[in-house]
Amino acid sequence: MEEPLNLVLFSGTDDRLQAAAVLTAGAAALGKPVNLFLQYWALDAFRRDRIDQDHGLAPEAGAEGRAHVDDLRRAGQVSWAEVMRQAKDLGEVDIQACSLSMDLLHIDEADLDPLVDGVEGVTAFYLNAGSGHMVFI
Amino acid sequence: MEEPLNLVLFSGTDDRLQAAAVLTAGAAALGKPVNLFLQYWALDAFRRDRIDQDHGLAPEAGAEGRAHVDDLRRAGQVSWAEVMRQAKDLGEVDIQACSLSMDLLHIDEADLDPLVDGVEGVTAFYLNAGSGHMVFI
Amino acid sequence: MEEPLNLVLFSGTDDRLQAAAVLTAGAAALGKPVNLFLQYWALDAFRRDRIDQDHGLAPEAGAEGRAHVDDLRRAGQVSWAEVMRQAKDLGEVDIQACSLSMDLLHIDEADLDPLVDGVEGVTAFYLNAGSGHMVFI
Repeated sequence: MEEPLNLVLFSGTDDRLQAAAVLTAGAAALGKPVNLFLQYWALDAFRRDRIDQDHGLAPEAGAEGRAHVDDLRRAGQVSWAEVMRQAKDLGEVDIQACSLSMDLLHIDEADLDPLVDGVEGVTAFYLNAGSGHMVFI
Repeated sequence: MEEPLNLVLFSGTDDRLQAAAVLTAGAAALGKPVNLFLQYWALDAFRRDRIDQDHGLAPEAGAEGRAHVDDLRRAGQVSWAEVMRQAKDLGEVDIQACSLSMDLLHIDEADLDPLVDGVEGVTAFYLNAGSGHMVFI
Repeated sequence: MEEPLNLVLFSGTDDRLQAAAVLTAGAAALGKPVNLFLQYWALDAFRRDRIDQDHGLAPEAGAEGRAHVDDLRRAGQVSWAEVMRQAKDLGEVDIQACSLSMDLLHIDEADLDPLVDGVEGVTAFYLNAGSGHMVFI
């Protein structure tokens, strides 16, 4: 079986999450399994009641970057959450919340968007990662 | 053939771009091919008319970090763009702009510095990546 | 021998360093060797007289994130530096400072916390990395 792409999502800004969604969708389109592991601010962005909100951009985006992102959204670009949903329909995409970050942020599984498949520790993440690429975003 | 080093450049601040340039040059010096894929703010930094400008530092650099970077530049340290140029002379370094980010930022190929070899989608990037390291910066 | 996990630590904020420490400890628990390479603001955070100080969080943490981190610390969570120390006791964890960043920040080996095993260049880091995962944080 093809080696999976393994993404540790740490950052919860919309630009990094969109970059992560593009990497996920591209891998799914190639038939490559994708394992996502949600930590810290990325995990917070996957809360059921926050996932479709504005999560800001990296500070370096500045006003010009902000304007470009807003323009594209108004022109009909789908959100990173929607790209993730489409990638799950298309391929084998497994999204796990980091158990330590769940504790840190006082999040229960019921608080998370249905995109998230479960909660696991970092050792389980490693064991599933095999020798595929591992990327921290 | 040796497996390539694959770098996804997302951030466009001078400190992260300098770190990326050092990783690129080190790999090139070892005879390892390097594939760079430019997204978002990193792509913006490779515009022909911006590449040699100041792109700021990560917020965490603070005033002390800023002073260290300025001191080194005054002492003759070459810019990350120049390190990239040297790495291209030294080895096999291919720099591609992400087509989705080109659309986002309204950039045409003619706007990009000659360091950039072309424009491609994420699936092409994956297919060239093989089983080499993949790093997101 | 099992392939190592290779972490390039660039960021020096407590949240990213804690994420790095968790990845390090998890790998060590699985018997996987870990190579850490300290650059820029991460290197600065490993100074002997700064390692146990507050290094801030990513800007996106906001006041809510800050409160969560402070709560957990008050509840007895150990610092990332202590997690790194425990990981070194548990497994094969090698921490090297990037020689170029040492110059940039005017740091001598004597300034670094004993957690750091030495100073090396990026090519030495690559040669030790083998075909294990390489992650930039």
